[in-house]
Amino acid sequence: MKPIVSIIMGSTSDFPVMEKAAKIFDEFEIPFEINALSAHRTPAEVEHFAKHAKDRGIQVIIAAAGMAAHLPGVIASMTTLPVIGVPINASLDGMDALLAIVQMPPGIPVATVGINGAMNAGILAVQIMATGDKDLQKKLVHYKEDLKKKIVQANEELSTIKFKYKTN
Amino acid sequence: MKPIVSIIMGSTSDFPVMEKAAKIFDEFEIPFEINALSAHRTPAEVEHFAKHAKDRGIQVIIAAAGMAAHLPGVIASMTTLPVIGVPINASLDGMDALLAIVQMPPGIPVATVGINGAMNAGILAVQIMATGDKDLQKKLVHYKEDLKKKIVQANEELSTIKFKYKTN
Amino acid sequence: MKPIVSIIMGSTSDFPVMEKAAKIFDEFEIPFEINALSAHRTPAEVEHFAKHAKDRGIQVIIAAAGMAAHLPGVIASMTTLPVIGVPINASLDGMDALLAIVQMPPGIPVATVGINGAMNAGILAVQIMATGDKDLQKKLVHYKEDLKKKIVQANEELSTIKFKYKTN
Amino acid sequence: MKPIVSIIMGSTSDFPVMEKAAKIFDEFEIPFEINALSAHRTPAEVEHFAKHAKDRGIQVIIAAAGMAAHLPGVIASMTTLPVIGVPINASLDGMDALLAIVQMPPGIPVATVGINGAMNAGILAVQIMATGDKDLQKKLVHYKEDLKKKIVQANEELSTIKFKYKTN
Amino acid sequence: MKPIVSIIMGSTSDFPVMEKAAKIFDEFEIPFEINALSAHRTPAEVEHFAKHAKDRGIQVIIAAAGMAAHLPGVIASMTTLPVIGVPINASLDGMDALLAIVQMPPGIPVATVGINGAMNAGILAVQIMATGDKDLQKKLVHYKEDLKKKIVQANEELSTIKFKYKTN
Amino acid sequence: MKPIVSIIMGSTSDFPVMEKAAKIFDEFEIPFEINALSAHRTPAEVEHFAKHAKDRGIQVIIAAAGMAAHLPGVIASMTTLPVIGVPINASLDGMDALLAIVQMPPGIPVATVGINGAMNAGILAVQIMATGDKDLQKKLVHYKEDLKKKIVQANEELSTIKFKYKTN
Amino acid sequence: MKPIVSIIMGSTSDFPVMEKAAKIFDEFEIPFEINALSAHRTPAEVEHFAKHAKDRGIQVIIAAAGMAAHLPGVIASMTTLPVIGVPINASLDGMDALLAIVQMPPGIPVATVGINGAMNAGILAVQIMATGDKDLQKKLVHYKEDLKKKIVQANEELSTIKFKYKTN
Amino acid sequence: MKPIVSIIMGSTSDFPVMEKAAKIFDEFEIPFEINALSAHRTPAEVEHFAKHAKDRGIQVIIAAAGMAAHLPGVIASMTTLPVIGVPINASLDGMDALLAIVQMPPGIPVATVGINGAMNAGILAVQIMATGDKDLQKKLVHYKEDLKKKIVQANEELSTIKFKYKTN
Repeated sequence: MKPIVSIIMGSTSDFPVMEKAAKIFDEFEIPFEINALSAHRTPAEVEHFAKHAKDRGIQVIIAAAGMAAHLPGVIASMTTLPVIGVPINASLDGMDALLAIVQMPPGIPVATVGINGAMNAGILAVQIMATGDKDLQKKLVHYKEDLKKKIVQANEELSTIKFKYKTN
Repeated sequence: MKPIVSIIMGSTSDFPVMEKAAKIFDEFEIPFEINALSAHRTPAEVEHFAKHAKDRGIQVIIAAAGMAAHLPGVIASMTTLPVIGVPINASLDGMDALLAIVQMPPGIPVATVGINGAMNAGILAVQIMATGDKDLQKKLVHYKEDLKKKIVQANEELSTIKFKYKTN
Repeated sequence: MKPIVSIIMGSTSDFPVMEKAAKIFDEFEIPFEINALSAHRTPAEVEHFAKHAKDRGIQVIIAAAGMAAHLPGVIASMTTLPVIGVPINASLDGMDALLAIVQMPPGIPVATVGINGAMNAGILAVQIMATGDKDLQKKLVHYKEDLKKKIVQANEELSTIKFKYKTN
Repeated sequence: MKPIVSIIMGSTSDFPVMEKAAKIFDEFEIPFEINALSAHRTPAEVEHFAKHAKDRGIQVIIAAAGMAAHLPGVIASMTTLPVIGVPINASLDGMDALLAIVQMPPGIPVATVGINGAMNAGILAVQIMATGDKDLQKKLVHYKEDLKKKIVQANEELSTIKFKYKTN
Repeated sequence: MKPIVSIIMGSTSDFPVMEKAAKIFDEFEIPFEINALSAHRTPAEVEHFAKHAKDRGIQVIIAAAGMAAHLPGVIASMTTLPVIGVPINASLDGMDALLAIVQMPPGIPVATVGINGAMNAGILAVQIMATGDKDLQKKLVHYKEDLKKKIVQANEELSTIKFKYKTN
Repeated sequence: MKPIVSIIMGSTSDFPVMEKAAKIFDEFEIPFEINALSAHRTPAEVEHFAKHAKDRGIQVIIAAAGMAAHLPGVIASMTTLPVIGVPINASLDGMDALLAIVQMPPGIPVATVGINGAMNAGILAVQIMATGDKDLQKKLVHYKEDLKKKIVQANEELSTIKFKYKTN
Repeated sequence: MKPIVSIIMGSTSDFPVMEKAAKIFDEFEIPFEINALSAHRTPAEVEHFAKHAKDRGIQVIIAAAGMAAHLPGVIASMTTLPVIGVPINASLDGMDALLAIVQMPPGIPVATVGINGAMNAGILAVQIMATGDKDLQKKLVHYKEDLKKKIVQANEELSTIKFKYKTN
Repeated sequence: MKPIVSIIMGSTSDFPVMEKAAKIFDEFEIPFEINALSAHRTPAEVEHFAKHAKDRGIQVIIAAAGMAAHLPGVIASMTTLPVIGVPINASLDGMDALLAIVQMPPGIPVATVGINGAMNAGILAVQIMATGDKDLQKKLVHYKEDLKKKIVQANEELSTIKFKYKTN
C-alpha cells in the first residue's frame, strides 16, 4: 500500500490537531503517511521530502504549522503538487500562523483552511484527489449526506427542549 | 471547447482583480468560464451553478468575494468539487473577507488564497487539475522555472545600482 | 399557538448561548420556534425555511453562527423579513463571526448584535414586533424599568462595602 | 406628511455616507427626517429626541457615528423603538465605531449594519416597517428582484470580455 | 467628610477591578464615593450625577465600563470636570472597551488608562488633584519612591536564584 | 509670562497634529511652551525636562509620539505631574502608538486621548488646570456651549438639503 | 567570572519566561547576569545600567517587558550595544508589548524576538557574540544539529501511532 | 574589498525601502552586498547563499520580505549567523509580514526590526559588528550624537513658530 497523500507537521505537538485529517483518510480508505518535519530545524529533510513527493506517488500534501508558520509555503516552493496549509493556534489565537500561511506571494499558492482546520484539510485533499476518481466522488456525496443527517438529528434533539412559548 | 474551470465573482467590480486568474488559464491553455453571481442577490442562480458544475465537466471552482464574503462557502456547500476562495479587499484591508472565507466549519472546506490573490488561485487550480495530467505537470515545472528566471534577472538589475561600499 | 419569531442556529452547540433569546420570548409571552439548520450542511433546508417563513406568519428571524458565519446572510438573501444576526464566539474571540455577519454587501442587511449577544437579539426582535403592537410596547417599557431597578439595587449593595475614606 | 423613520448622524460630515439611507426612503416613498445631533456635544437634544420620537410617530431610528460612536447606544437607552446603528469610518478603518456600536451590554440592543452601511440601514428600516405593511412587503420583493436583475446584466457585460481560452 | 473624587462603574461586576482605585484613595487619605450607574440602563441617573458632581465638590471622576463602553464619554459630555476612563475587559480582551472610550470626538476628551487599569486611574486622579495641593504632591513623591523600593527588593530576590554561569 | 502647560513631541513632523493643542491654549489664554524632545534620541534632555517641569511652574504635560511611542511614559516615570499622551498615526493607523502609550504598568499612568487627538489633549489639560480655577471653569462652560451651537447650526444646514420624502 | 551578556526584565513576574534565556547561557557556558529594572519605576537605575554596561564588558543586552513595554527601547537609547527585546504576554496576547518594542523610530533599533521568546533571545545573543568567537560558532553548529535530532526522534515516535490506512 | 554584511530582499520592489540600509553601510564605510533572492521562487539559491555566507566572511545578514514573509526565517534556519528581519508593508499595513518574521519557533531566532525599518536594520547590523570593533564603536557614538543634534536643531525651528500664548 503506497501513500497518495502526505501529512506533514512542524512539530509533534501539532498531532492532537492533525489526527483529524488522518481520521478522514481512514474513513475514505485512502493510504496516507504522517511525518513531523520542521522548515526551520530540518530544512534539508523538508527539501528532500518536497522534491521527491510527486515521484513517490503523492498527489496532495497537507502541511501544518504554528506561529511564523513557514512549512506549507516552503514545501509549496519546492513542488508543483497542491499544498494544503493548516494554521495551528500556538499563539495570538492562530492569527500569526494564518497570515504566515495564506498571504503567499504571487506564483506559489498554498490552499489554506481555517485555524486548526485539520478535518477540513483532509476533506479538501479528498475533493482534490476525487477530481479524477469517480469512486471517491461517490464517497464524498455520501459523506456530505451524513453531515446533513447529523445536523437533522441534532435539530430533533433541540425539539425535546421545552420552553413555555416554544411551539416546536 | 468546454470549460474545465470556472471563475465566479460576487460583483463585476471584482473583475480587475480576478482577470489575473483568467490570464493564468490563457497561459496554461485551459478552457475556462467567468461569471458574476452573488450569494446574496442571486441565490437561486448560485445554487443552480453549484449543483450542475460537476456534470458540465468543471473540475475546480474559483470563487471571489469581498466584505462578508459568503460566495465561496455557499458554493462549497452545494458541490463536492474543490472550491478556491479569493478574499477581495473591499473594506478593512480585506481582513473581513479573509476570515469570512477561510474560517469554514468542519465538513465544508474552502481552499483559501491570500487577499486579492487571484493569480495564485489560478495557479492552485492548475496544480489541482495537474494531479492527473502529465502535460499540465510539465507546464507547471516550466512556469516555476520562469518565475525563478524573472527574479534572477531582477537581481542582475540590482547589481547595476551603485553604492560606495557595495561590492557586487 | 403559531410562532411569530424563529431562532435558527448553525449548530446545536450554540444552544447554551441562544437559549437567552428563548428566555426573552418566554418572558414577553411571544410564541417562537427554535431550529438548528446549517447554511453549509443543510443548504436546501435553509432555503426552504427562509422562503416560507413569512407565509407561516414569522415576523422576525434570529440567526446565530460562529466562525465564517454565513447563516444570517444566506437567510437574509432569501426573505424580506428582518434578520437579526448573532455572532457566536467559536474562534478568534468571535471576531471572525462578527465580520462575516455584519459586513453584508449593499442590498441585503443583517441586523447584527454583539458577540454571543443572544439576549439582545431577543429584545431587538421584541422591539421590532412592537412597532405595531401597543401591548408589547408597554411590556418593553416595564422591562426597561426593571433593568434600571436591578442596577439601582446593585448600587445599594455597593454602598455596604466599606473603605476607610469611602463616604457613601 | 409626518416622518415615520428618523436618520440621526453625529456630525454633518457623515452626510455623504448617510444620504444613501435617505435615497432608499425616497425610493420606497417613506416620509423621513434627517438631523445631526451629537451624543457628546448636544446630549440634552439627543435625550429630547429619543424620548419623544415614538410619540411623534417615528417607528425606526437610524443613528450613525464614527470613532467612539456612542450615539446609537445612547438613543437606544432612551427609547423602546428599534435603533439601527451605522458605524462610520472616521479612523481605524471604522473598526472603533463598529465595536463601539455593536458590543452593547445586555438589555439595550442596537441593530448594527456594516461600516458605512447606510444603504443597508435604510433597507433594514424598510424591512422592519414592512412587518405590518403588505404594500411595503411587495415593494421589497420588487426591490430584491431589481438587485438580481442588475447583477444578471453585469454578468452579461462580463461575457463580452474576451480571453483566448474563455468559453462564455 | 465630603468626597472629592467619584468612582462610577457600569456594572457591579466591575467592582473586583475597580476596588484597586478605591485602595489608592484610602492610601492617599482622599475621601471618595463609589457608585454603579449604567449609561444605558439608568441614563437619567447618569445625567443627574454628571451635572451635579462639580457642585457637590467632586474634582475628578473615574468611570469604568466594558464592551461598547459609553459611560465615560457620556459623563464627559455633561460636565467640565476631568473624566478618567477605565476600559474593562469583558470581551475581545478589552479592545472594544478601550476603543469605545479613548477614540472620543474633538471637544469631549476622556483621560483613558490601560485595560483594567483601575490602580492607574486612582493614581492619575491623585496627580490631577495634586496640581494645587502641596501635601498631595509630597505623598505622590513618597509613593513613587515606594514603587522603586519594591522593584529594588524584587531584584534582590532575583539574586538568590542560582544558575551555573550566573554571576550576580 | 511663564508657561503653565508644556507640549512635547517626539519629532517636529508631529507639529501639524499638535498645533491643535496649541490653538486650544491660545483660545483659553493659557501660557504654554512647545518642544521637540525624543525619548530615544535625546534621553538626557527628556530627563532634565521631566525632572524640572514642576519647579518651573508647569502643571500639566502633553506628550505626543508615534510608533513605539515611549515619550509620554518615560516622562511620566520622572515626574508626578499629570501627563497626557497623544498617540500619533505614523504607522499601523496609530494602533502601535495607542497601545504603547495607554497600556502603562501599575504605578505610572498616562492620561491617553484618541489617535491624533491633540485638540482633546489641549481641552483635557484645561479641564485639569480648571479644577482649582473658577475663571477657567467658566471658559470651559462657554466652550462647550459653543460646541453645541456649531452642531445646531450644522443641523440647520442639513435642513436645506431636499429629498422628495424628507419632511424637515 | 565577569558577565558578558545581561538579562534585564521589567518585573520579577517575567522570570518564569526569562529563565529560558538564562538556561541557554548555562548551556553555552557564557557568564551572564540577571536583573529586574523598570523603565518606569527605576528610571535612574536603568540609565545607570545602560550607560555603563559596555564598560563592564557586556556585549549584548536582553531586555524583556510587557504591556506598554518601554524597557528595551529606553535601554537602546542609552547604549550602542545591541539590545534584544522580548515582548512579554501580560495583556492583549502580548500584541501591545510586541508593537511597543519592535516599532522603534529610525536611529534606535531593538532586535525583537517573538512574544515570550526568551529562549530565542538567548540563542540570538549567542549568535551575535559568536561573530568573533570560533568556539562559540562550533557550539552553535552542534546546538542546531541537536535541534534537528530532537525533531527526527519525535518523528520516529509518530511512526508508532497506528491508523488503518497509515503507511509509515 | 570583501563584503562583511549582506542585504537580501524577497523582491526588487523592496529596494526603495531597503536602500536605507545600504546608505547606513556607506555612511559607516562597511563593505556590503545586495541581492534579490526569493524563499519561494529561488529556494536553491537561498539555500546556497545561506550555507556559504559565513565562509565568505559575512558577519550579519539582513533579510527583507513582505506578506507571508518567509525569507528571514528560512535563511536563519540554514546559518548560525545573526539574521535581521525587515517586515515590508506590502499588504495589511505590514502586519502579516511582521508576524511571519518575528514569531519564529524556539531554536531559530530572527532579530526583527519595525515595519519597513531598513535604516534600523542597518544600524543594528553595525551595532552587532561593533561588538568586537572599537573603531566602529566610536563611529556609533558619533552617529548617536548626530541624531541628537538633528532633533535639537528641529526643536530650534519649532521655537520660531509663533502663537499668542506661546512662551518659548
